[in-house]
Amino acid sequence: MIFVLRLGHRVSRDKRVTSHIALTARALGTDGVIISGEEDRPMIKSIEDVVERWGGTFSCKYEKDWKGVIGAYKKKGYKIVHLTFYGWPIRQKIEEMRNKDVLVIVGAEKVPKDLYYVADYNISITNQPHSEISALAIFLHEYFSGEDLEKIFENAKIKIIPREKGKKVLR
Amino acid sequence: MIFVLRLGHRVSRDKRVTSHIALTARALGTDGVIISGEEDRPMIKSIEDVVERWGGTFSCKYEKDWKGVIGAYKKKGYKIVHLTFYGWPIRQKIEEMRNKDVLVIVGAEKVPKDLYYVADYNISITNQPHSEISALAIFLHEYFSGEDLEKIFENAKIKIIPREKGKKVLR
Repeated sequence: MIFVLRLGHRVSRDKRVTSHIALTARALGTDGVIISGEEDRPMIKSIEDVVERWGGTFSCKYEKDWKGVIGAYKKKGYKIVHLTFYGWPIRQKIEEMRNKDVLVIVGAEKVPKDLYYVADYNISITNQPHSEISALAIFLHEYFSGEDLEKIFENAKIKIIPREKGKKVLR
Repeated sequence: MIFVLRLGHRVSRDKRVTSHIALTARALGTDGVIISGEEDRPMIKSIEDVVERWGGTFSCKYEKDWKGVIGAYKKKGYKIVHLTFYGWPIRQKIEEMRNKDVLVIVGAEKVPKDLYYVADYNISITNQPHSEISALAIFLHEYFSGEDLEKIFENAKIKIIPREKGKKVLR
């Protein structure tokens, strides 16, 4: 299984970025996201609404104590993967992670220094500044070897039928 | 060459999302971004500052007339690729696009309907709701067959040396 831990969420500033992280985590096939930092019930509710309408079993919850979350996942045998542009290039490490249970950590602007040492892997998606959302997307795409794009979501109330032109939606 | 056109930027609401799009476009190796919608000089300046410090030749500019931009790129022989969750799955089309000049269009929430017909390709990165930033990242990662992660940025004033633990920056 694979879960995403988002650190340092700020209600006023990060609403959209954290939503994009959660929705990316869901669309690309992870099992759930845990959000730390400031508590943001409306945002979590909006993600749950997406799950309700678009299907699948993705979980979204808040946890104040992110160190506790990491400890608990470590105990269950998960590999702790911290995405950071200071880290080691993904393609040199991804093979070791596939088919393992993983907790992927996505930080906000400032990440506590000891995280680099608590993590089993510090992984970079380029060593350039860009976006934690992009970094997560590419990480998951690599982790699932592209099969992230073909996930089926059970019990969907709304479903898009791909088209070359225009839009087709089943409800 | 490959450029990104961001439609419908709103200064108050999209500052961070559009910045993430521009930085993703740069980090993953495109030649530049064109931003349409509301003009946002400070945001463009912040991207130019990243280019100045982190190197490379990425361009970032504003164009009010996005239809004109599409027309101009079409005329130069670019393929127009619109990323939308209504579109055709990327993996069934990407082969046709590689090694072609491409203008990738990333919309904001509402996209004009005729865009679906002006585009040579309407492409989905899953048919689930997630993030235009993730969609762009995965599109570029597929377009460049993973070599997007290894781009060298010339004339950088700041450079990260990848590490397994901790941080190393050259200035």
